[in-house]
Amino acid sequence: MTIKAGIVGYGNLGQGVEYLINSLDDFELFGIFSRRETLDTDADVYPVEDAAKYKDDIDVMFLCVGSATDIPDQATGFAEHFTTVDTYDNHSKVAEHRAAMHKVAQANDNVAVVSTGWDPGLFSMNRVLGLSLFPEPVQNTFWGKGLSQGHSDAVRQVQGVKRGVQYTIPAQDAIDQARAGNGQGLSKTQAHDRIVYIVADAADHDRIREEIVSMPAYFEPYDTTVHFISEEEFERDHQGAPHGGHVITTGNLQGHNASVEFSLDLESNPNFTAAAMVAFGRAAARLKAQGQSGAFTVLEVPPYLLSPQSLDDLLKSEII
Amino acid sequence: MTIKAGIVGYGNLGQGVEYLINSLDDFELFGIFSRRETLDTDADVYPVEDAAKYKDDIDVMFLCVGSATDIPDQATGFAEHFTTVDTYDNHSKVAEHRAAMHKVAQANDNVAVVSTGWDPGLFSMNRVLGLSLFPEPVQNTFWGKGLSQGHSDAVRQVQGVKRGVQYTIPAQDAIDQARAGNGQGLSKTQAHDRIVYIVADAADHDRIREEIVSMPAYFEPYDTTVHFISEEEFERDHQGAPHGGHVITTGNLQGHNASVEFSLDLESNPNFTAAAMVAFGRAAARLKAQGQSGAFTVLEVPPYLLSPQSLDDLLKSEII
Repeated sequence: MTIKAGIVGYGNLGQGVEYLINSLDDFELFGIFSRRETLDTDADVYPVEDAAKYKDDIDVMFLCVGSATDIPDQATGFAEHFTTVDTYDNHSKVAEHRAAMHKVAQANDNVAVVSTGWDPGLFSMNRVLGLSLFPEPVQNTFWGKGLSQGHSDAVRQVQGVKRGVQYTIPAQDAIDQARAGNGQGLSKTQAHDRIVYIVADAADHDRIREEIVSMPAYFEPYDTTVHFISEEEFERDHQGAPHGGHVITTGNLQGHNASVEFSLDLESNPNFTAAAMVAFGRAAARLKAQGQSGAFTVLEVPPYLLSPQSLDDLLKSEII
Repeated sequence: MTIKAGIVGYGNLGQGVEYLINSLDDFELFGIFSRRETLDTDADVYPVEDAAKYKDDIDVMFLCVGSATDIPDQATGFAEHFTTVDTYDNHSKVAEHRAAMHKVAQANDNVAVVSTGWDPGLFSMNRVLGLSLFPEPVQNTFWGKGLSQGHSDAVRQVQGVKRGVQYTIPAQDAIDQARAGNGQGLSKTQAHDRIVYIVADAADHDRIREEIVSMPAYFEPYDTTVHFISEEEFERDHQGAPHGGHVITTGNLQGHNASVEFSLDLESNPNFTAAAMVAFGRAAARLKAQGQSGAFTVLEVPPYLLSPQSLDDLLKSEII
């Protein structure tokens, strides 16, 4: 089965999905739906308001639009006509989003796989798995090394900063503590450090460092290191959007520690979110082909549906 | 729902399952089925040949018997009367075992979750997940640090060895290579080192080391280190059965490396196998309660079914 895919939205995520769809043998791209008339792509581009016309041409629609307002506003509209997959990432409203999508998808005999990506998404799966293994599990999630847009914006507000970027990194001693089974009570502040790279005139360095490390909420409670670098170094080393993290769960089993860890180390955050989304898009198309309907979180998808291989081929392979 | 559990077999695995069942709020132990008349346990013990009499008292039967011959010989007999979970670990025959269990379980309206544990089991899930994320994934599985019974037996055959134990450990340079996206073509030999701890008279040390590191197949192709230690150190530090490993998958996404890793670090191997088995036993009982029947591998179980929490509670929590 070749899965015919549509993409709504053409930001970083939509472009990442397009690249994957074109690279994978089991997908083909029908087109991209956008509010803009022209996009820098070889794909067919359609006005987003015409999407419903193509409902019979598309097996799964990738909703690559913003989580803050676009998904709550638009996702159910797409679920009326299409099997969909999204990366809605407002953790506290996943249940609400799933319920809204379930109602519409089920009424229209479509499938909606919601809140994919890596957190929520792969990290959610691994949090649930880890917590399912032990009578008294201890679990910590660490994020990073990751570029933080909000904190980078904050340092760029400091007077004299010409260029600036901020990375959140897990504190190594906190990771070691978690792996050893002693992560109980570790706060997010203790578990993460902040590293800042700044381009500025030498005369301003001391003042800038002081203003950054003492910035309330953003930096003050964290262990923050500020590095001053040249414009050239900034250009060369700090243009990417790395991210990643660790979900670490431990349990004590009759006096023996067991540590279970899922880790991501990503040179590009949006590219990998797209990769996770595409795997769950494959699952959405297959659930629909199986005759199912309604909304599914990543917790409800059997893992074999993510694979380009059939279950029979997986069972016969060395993978299992 | 409290899940009523039976256990067949009372070796390391059965004892580990018993401990967990007694520690978890959502399970209660009906009893242990054994060929032996008395066991060192507070649980009720029944003759294994009488098991079928108690089919209505047990929601899930944990088959804690040997993979080599007991599972192929006996598992379908239990699937006739019970919803079951097993840790059948012959990778090349999982498909065959699943098919045999499926036929019997389906005919008798039971569920059989097969080949749980960690490898096969959690590692299988993560191999499939990793391979589903990238157009051209590169994947390596590393095992260890792990006690190897076969290699420990081999070193104990060397003349002059009073006590001996062997651990397999992943080679750090090979792990680094895999994480960086360069794991293609790494052989099992390159990827693992062997560490041996021996108690012997000082006069024999050089000869024993030489005999071990040159032992064909067992040690000769590997980077092997032999440490000579005192009887006291051996007693203190080498009585456990640690194990673990890493499933590392990388992919190149538009020039950016993404590394996905699942790791286990286990002070006790059989205890953790039991923990994974119990989580899948919970899923087996729930699949049966949902009205399903037949055999399921770990690839076919939606992750939420592993959790002691309901799907609704998971969705409303911070976990997702």
